[in-house]
Amino acid sequence: MKVKLQEIAELVNGKIIGDESSIIRGLAKIDEAKNGDLTFLYHPAYEKYFQTTKASAILVKTGFDKTRDDIDYIEIEHPEKAFFTLIRNYLTPKFPLEGIDKTAFVHPAAVIGQGTALGKNVIISSGCKIGDNVKIFHNTVLLDNVEVGDNTLIFQNVSIRENCKIGKRVIIHPGTVIGADGFGFNPDEKGVYHKIPQVGNVIIEDDVELGANVTVDRASLGSTIIKSRVKIDNLVQIAHNVIIGENTVISSQSGISGSTKIGRNCILAGQVGLVGHIEIAENTILLAQAGISKSIKKPGKYFGSPAKELSIALKLEAHLRSLPEYAERIKNLENQIKTLQKEIQKANK
Amino acid sequence: MKVKLQEIAELVNGKIIGDESSIIRGLAKIDEAKNGDLTFLYHPAYEKYFQTTKASAILVKTGFDKTRDDIDYIEIEHPEKAFFTLIRNYLTPKFPLEGIDKTAFVHPAAVIGQGTALGKNVIISSGCKIGDNVKIFHNTVLLDNVEVGDNTLIFQNVSIRENCKIGKRVIIHPGTVIGADGFGFNPDEKGVYHKIPQVGNVIIEDDVELGANVTVDRASLGSTIIKSRVKIDNLVQIAHNVIIGENTVISSQSGISGSTKIGRNCILAGQVGLVGHIEIAENTILLAQAGISKSIKKPGKYFGSPAKELSIALKLEAHLRSLPEYAERIKNLENQIKTLQKEIQKANK
Amino acid sequence: MKVKLQEIAELVNGKIIGDESSIIRGLAKIDEAKNGDLTFLYHPAYEKYFQTTKASAILVKTGFDKTRDDIDYIEIEHPEKAFFTLIRNYLTPKFPLEGIDKTAFVHPAAVIGQGTALGKNVIISSGCKIGDNVKIFHNTVLLDNVEVGDNTLIFQNVSIRENCKIGKRVIIHPGTVIGADGFGFNPDEKGVYHKIPQVGNVIIEDDVELGANVTVDRASLGSTIIKSRVKIDNLVQIAHNVIIGENTVISSQSGISGSTKIGRNCILAGQVGLVGHIEIAENTILLAQAGISKSIKKPGKYFGSPAKELSIALKLEAHLRSLPEYAERIKNLENQIKTLQKEIQKANK
Repeated sequence: MKVKLQEIAELVNGKIIGDESSIIRGLAKIDEAKNGDLTFLYHPAYEKYFQTTKASAILVKTGFDKTRDDIDYIEIEHPEKAFFTLIRNYLTPKFPLEGIDKTAFVHPAAVIGQGTALGKNVIISSGCKIGDNVKIFHNTVLLDNVEVGDNTLIFQNVSIRENCKIGKRVIIHPGTVIGADGFGFNPDEKGVYHKIPQVGNVIIEDDVELGANVTVDRASLGSTIIKSRVKIDNLVQIAHNVIIGENTVISSQSGISGSTKIGRNCILAGQVGLVGHIEIAENTILLAQAGISKSIKKPGKYFGSPAKELSIALKLEAHLRSLPEYAERIKNLENQIKTLQKEIQKANK
Repeated sequence: MKVKLQEIAELVNGKIIGDESSIIRGLAKIDEAKNGDLTFLYHPAYEKYFQTTKASAILVKTGFDKTRDDIDYIEIEHPEKAFFTLIRNYLTPKFPLEGIDKTAFVHPAAVIGQGTALGKNVIISSGCKIGDNVKIFHNTVLLDNVEVGDNTLIFQNVSIRENCKIGKRVIIHPGTVIGADGFGFNPDEKGVYHKIPQVGNVIIEDDVELGANVTVDRASLGSTIIKSRVKIDNLVQIAHNVIIGENTVISSQSGISGSTKIGRNCILAGQVGLVGHIEIAENTILLAQAGISKSIKKPGKYFGSPAKELSIALKLEAHLRSLPEYAERIKNLENQIKTLQKEIQKANK
Repeated sequence: MKVKLQEIAELVNGKIIGDESSIIRGLAKIDEAKNGDLTFLYHPAYEKYFQTTKASAILVKTGFDKTRDDIDYIEIEHPEKAFFTLIRNYLTPKFPLEGIDKTAFVHPAAVIGQGTALGKNVIISSGCKIGDNVKIFHNTVLLDNVEVGDNTLIFQNVSIRENCKIGKRVIIHPGTVIGADGFGFNPDEKGVYHKIPQVGNVIIEDDVELGANVTVDRASLGSTIIKSRVKIDNLVQIAHNVIIGENTVISSQSGISGSTKIGRNCILAGQVGLVGHIEIAENTILLAQAGISKSIKKPGKYFGSPAKELSIALKLEAHLRSLPEYAERIKNLENQIKTLQKEIQKANK
């Protein structure tokens, strides 16, 4: 990038204190910025870098104490958000994929929209319907009858199995598998497992993002549903017939077992696990490594395995850490009791 | 599907109460069924849907209270099992892959059986032996000397490294990696790690199913072995030289460290972790998120990290939740002791 | 292999007690060895196999009690290390990939070094710089401007996104994804998440090994950095802007959240989780399933979730297991107090 500071200030609606005609050549974190870069400061933990940053300009909160005069300032209410606006505007990668590569395979009974690009060795099977302005990167495979909405971006080495439906503006990172069989077996009287055919599908609604190497299993019957605006991090497991409510965020390595329903606007931190067939109320926050074995009806924060309300979990954790002291006190009490018993015998003589 | 109710009743050996000539057009869950569908009911939790289901027919337990007369019934001892039989019979996907695609590569020194189908860009390297009626989907790569038994189904983007052996009727879901190097390093006197070559292989026996994005590492020497009828869910890690006994089930995101042996007929729930070099008795059940650091010789249910027998773990969990009360009682005892000490001084005067 | 015992003894600098001209045809574990194999013994747990092993020769510690005379011995100080030297020397796989396959795609604006081999359907995009003697297996995709150092080995179905840098002698196992977007979203006033563009990259330094189906996310700005000689096991998650110090080992299914820094020479066991924005001192050992929510400044061993120093965690675990006893003792104390109270009333009358 090569942009005048003035243009940047106008874009974020900020006030320049310094040289409006300075040229900005990059955006960087305060501790990594070099000459020519614009950086930002909003979090007290990063103030220690202010005196030494090599950035040429800085986004700061209105009223910031501008003790350096070798740097240009843009004052603004929300420096962090303004910075993200700049990143979106100047640095968003363009993913230069265009047209349908000659090594891509499109089945004659598939439909491809306007402006859609398919990378090398992409496979679009019979009955697929791909919307407009979709980008599908190299070696990604769509089996029969998969639908993909407009403006969706699918990276390389992704697998989508038959009959699954992907919405608009969805982003799917490499290695993710959508529509593999759910994990369903019936033991016979000898305990031998027989596969229950998994004949449902997966529905991914609009504006969902799925990380790398995620697995979303198809329903045994019906659909596994990831509702709109859900964001899912790498290596997450979504089992068959799960339903994830709108705008819920699921961090890396969490796993949701079969038929569980998670409400809207929930946040699951990393490595959380949920058993099957339960329901989680909307606006619930499950902290890292929480283990959820029962439905949660009351929104709030939950921690631990088995999980408890955070305030209770923290209280129990504090008591747990006091256990050596409690054991000592019990022992003291026992000794005191013994002493008292002797004294009382003496008194009663 | 389009099948007479009579044919269905005969297939599952059930008794029709209603119209034998009704036409069934689909199978669906009771809360999702629509007109023309057959559904089933066996679990009390789903009885609430009975009065409102739009299904045209229903599999019920013999003696069920048939309060609706606008629906046809099939009475049977095990409605759920009968329903799965119907799914297997009418809805099992056919996976329409046939012949050897012209973009697939088969090394001249590889052998491919009768009726085997290879998808696009599949790579079968030197020395591979692929059985009859195998289906290998697009972009899957088999390195040198891999063997695959008859009737095995391997989905797309699967990686199988050199010398691994896959049995008959095995199912491998997309993104799974078989035979990557085990995680073995030797630190030298300076603590620098040197790679221990991993020159063993992986043996997957008959009727095993492996989920999506699973990793099964090759042995350092000898074989990592997944015995027959084992079922493994998505994102599971099986380290080098592990042996999994027949008919054991491993749920999503569990991890088995190197050289650990798991007996037959075990069940591992989700996110379970086992350290290396231990043995788990057959018929052991490890509950979700259990952490196993020692061998288990006594079959039973285990829970927690570090894991304990379930009955003990539940007892300790109850005590843990009582800790605030225990702390209060200790404090009360201390106060009472003080009072008694004063009173006894008084008495002894 | 087919090697004289004398040659082997010279290679590891050991002393033969037996027939120098014996021919060794394989290397095997003591319980799996067959006639013609060389095995080794150093761990007391394996001594039980000595009397029955079918190996023809054995590496033993100097002074070992040689009670069998039908087997040739090589005496040496460190039998295990010597054995690994032999495996490295005689059994290290050669990975027979040569030249640039005609189905591989190399963009005209990419540079490929001397002696580098590209497998089938490998995609090397614009601006990539691949060093000498690199091997990249089938179906692996490198997007624009990826750099790969000399002698690096990348297996099949690996995804490396734009601008990432891979060092020399790195090994990357199948299915691993490097440079997917970090998990970064900004909620607006309605709680709707907006994607923060992830415009940094990933830097993997020399001699790193990454397991199968690992995910290493690109930085939001700047770089996610895996320093030299780090070893990472299967299914590990490394989030955006994480820095892993030299020679640190991370076992399977562990996850490191965004911007966390891990020092040199650390060991993370399996299924460990770390929150974001913390720092872990060098030489720290995190035991299996540890949950780390705060920075660790003091090297040592940590266990539990939330993690504690190991000695404390073990002490608390012992106290936890004593809780039923403590509860009983509290109850006894309460009863004794009541008795005493009565007696003292009597005494004071």
